[in-house]
Amino acid sequence: MLGNFSYHNPTKLYFGENSLEFLNEELPKYGKTVQLIYGGGSVKKNGIYDAIVEILKKNGKTVVEDGGVMPNPTVEKLREGIRIARNNKTDLLLAVGGGSCCDYAKAVSVSVNCNEDPWDKYYIRFEEPDCEIVPVACVLTMAGTGSEMNAGAVITNHEQKLKIGHVFGTEVMPKFSILNPKFTMSLPVRQMAAGIYDIFNHICEQYFSGDDDNTSDYLAEALMKSVVNSSLVAVKNPEDYEARSNIMWSATWALNTLISRGKDTDWMVHMLGQAVGAYTDATHGMTLAAVSLPYYRHILPYGLKKFVRFAKEVWGVNSEGKTYTEVAEEGLEKMKQWMQTIGVTLSIRELGATEDMIEGIADATIILDGGYKVLNRDEVVDILKQSL
Amino acid sequence: MLGNFSYHNPTKLYFGENSLEFLNEELPKYGKTVQLIYGGGSVKKNGIYDAIVEILKKNGKTVVEDGGVMPNPTVEKLREGIRIARNNKTDLLLAVGGGSCCDYAKAVSVSVNCNEDPWDKYYIRFEEPDCEIVPVACVLTMAGTGSEMNAGAVITNHEQKLKIGHVFGTEVMPKFSILNPKFTMSLPVRQMAAGIYDIFNHICEQYFSGDDDNTSDYLAEALMKSVVNSSLVAVKNPEDYEARSNIMWSATWALNTLISRGKDTDWMVHMLGQAVGAYTDATHGMTLAAVSLPYYRHILPYGLKKFVRFAKEVWGVNSEGKTYTEVAEEGLEKMKQWMQTIGVTLSIRELGATEDMIEGIADATIILDGGYKVLNRDEVVDILKQSL
Repeated sequence: MLGNFSYHNPTKLYFGENSLEFLNEELPKYGKTVQLIYGGGSVKKNGIYDAIVEILKKNGKTVVEDGGVMPNPTVEKLREGIRIARNNKTDLLLAVGGGSCCDYAKAVSVSVNCNEDPWDKYYIRFEEPDCEIVPVACVLTMAGTGSEMNAGAVITNHEQKLKIGHVFGTEVMPKFSILNPKFTMSLPVRQMAAGIYDIFNHICEQYFSGDDDNTSDYLAEALMKSVVNSSLVAVKNPEDYEARSNIMWSATWALNTLISRGKDTDWMVHMLGQAVGAYTDATHGMTLAAVSLPYYRHILPYGLKKFVRFAKEVWGVNSEGKTYTEVAEEGLEKMKQWMQTIGVTLSIRELGATEDMIEGIADATIILDGGYKVLNRDEVVDILKQSL
Repeated sequence: MLGNFSYHNPTKLYFGENSLEFLNEELPKYGKTVQLIYGGGSVKKNGIYDAIVEILKKNGKTVVEDGGVMPNPTVEKLREGIRIARNNKTDLLLAVGGGSCCDYAKAVSVSVNCNEDPWDKYYIRFEEPDCEIVPVACVLTMAGTGSEMNAGAVITNHEQKLKIGHVFGTEVMPKFSILNPKFTMSLPVRQMAAGIYDIFNHICEQYFSGDDDNTSDYLAEALMKSVVNSSLVAVKNPEDYEARSNIMWSATWALNTLISRGKDTDWMVHMLGQAVGAYTDATHGMTLAAVSLPYYRHILPYGLKKFVRFAKEVWGVNSEGKTYTEVAEEGLEKMKQWMQTIGVTLSIRELGATEDMIEGIADATIILDGGYKVLNRDEVVDILKQSL
């Protein structure tokens, strides 16, 4: 049932092969100093960095370097980014990369003009930003997290072995994001697959809650089907522009709050995956893939009706002459086959997790209400063991 | 194929039974003088008018009356609204009603500070607004047009027998819209059905173009299925909150530019329906319903692959052992049965059109490129005759 909610998503999106051109339209709206945020340097190899710096200079901007953002951005790096922004009086945080760079830019944005340490304020106490933000914009080079059109930012604290996400307010959403599917093509296929599973799971996390007839669930199914169909094309031919563009566009709409309207949502796969990530530093999408099937098999009896719908609508399972449980399980089996086809991992052991880490990972798992079942700690441990 | 496009939709939506409360949050952001736009007075009977005036007064606003907006707002009424706004120095145009009121508010918005006549500037020459706009907000009492989250406004000129829509820029989109499904329940069932068909046809107009694999088409199918399923509940029990809320939410997303991203779109049913409307002043959704099947049967051979997909995905047609044309036609037959079930008309004669109007209606029909076929005038006449 669609209850009471609001929806507000003012991020402007520029999509397509020519979308970088629109930087010229947006840059004049912001001040002179642009903090250029990027990762390990792949954007320097593939020419995207140079193309952007050229546009920035043409628009009279002072470029402040902020490279080296790691796949799971750390609180130490975040503190460095805040120092850079303060020292240079940054006017615009321009993230060039995947979700890590966008997330990091947002975490810097809300912290620059704030005296308190961001980890304490946002990731331990989950407070709202009450200091003036610095505007954020993104040039996306990897499809997956949806960070380009939402207010979320995940930060990792290795010392405390915690990887925690926080959703800020609408004002922290990127002012604009540039989505060029061609930019995602330089990514290794394994990273592409991790991104695809991340997208798919974002949709699952919102879909697996409630049993009523809700427009959001129809939209979720549409996005899942589009991602699955395009992923099968993209793993065979990563240069297929149509498939890569559908994947990129679906990623944005999978996590920009649209399909969670009127939904309780679940998010336990992310809680489990993030805890695995805090211990292994593995790729986010892979951690989600590795824990998903054991988790969904575990909650299936509690959300049977929805798992039946999932099997029929998303995976085309023919329900004739079968019990509800058989139909639901066949859906998860088809999902497993798809995951194997696109090449995501089904085991946290492959990601570096070991038996002796299980208790620690369980401790680091934040237990939410879930869509159909509140897990207890023993269940978390069981699911993690089945994910080994 | 998702080509190059931008997406920017900053309208803030408040949804649900308690959504009117959020007027208290929004009103302080605007100046003192609120022009209260409404229709024939039904909002006075059902108490919505009083509830809103109370909130406006509590927030210290001066209320300027602008009632009597007709179902197909005329250019004469538009000129009156502009005069009211100028004389009172209106700070906020608050539309309370359906699409007609929202459309009208937007047409006033772009004209208040403009010397030229709005009909000439926007509806004959299709110019962009270049004068300062007055902000618009909506409290929606009827689901259908999607006007609550887009920049479009249809205006009728009876003297010239023309009903023309114009899409302004992002700045003309409502700043916020309040969507309370309960407000739509006081509507007569026939009006509800007309709104439902309007929603469905908005989706068709964007869906029936292109043959490639495009995320937008998956989203379009999701919205169509949600509307069809909820409409079957709502015609039996118009008080079903869940069904009415799904219909209201789908209406917004059916025409806020999302599902047209990367699509050529069609819009010929609207061109035909609007010409019928200019001659008969009939309810918009009914004019669309009356011309749809003859039009879609006519273009079916040119867009066969898409009509097959439509039949299978939206109407669950089993394609086994059938030709493509048989599958596609079975889809339209199921659509016809659905239209009859919800009670929309299949004949423009029922709406007041007569044989001798056909040539005039054909003259008033703006011929667009269409999704699969550019009509010539003879084809327009034929389709109108089949719609009689």
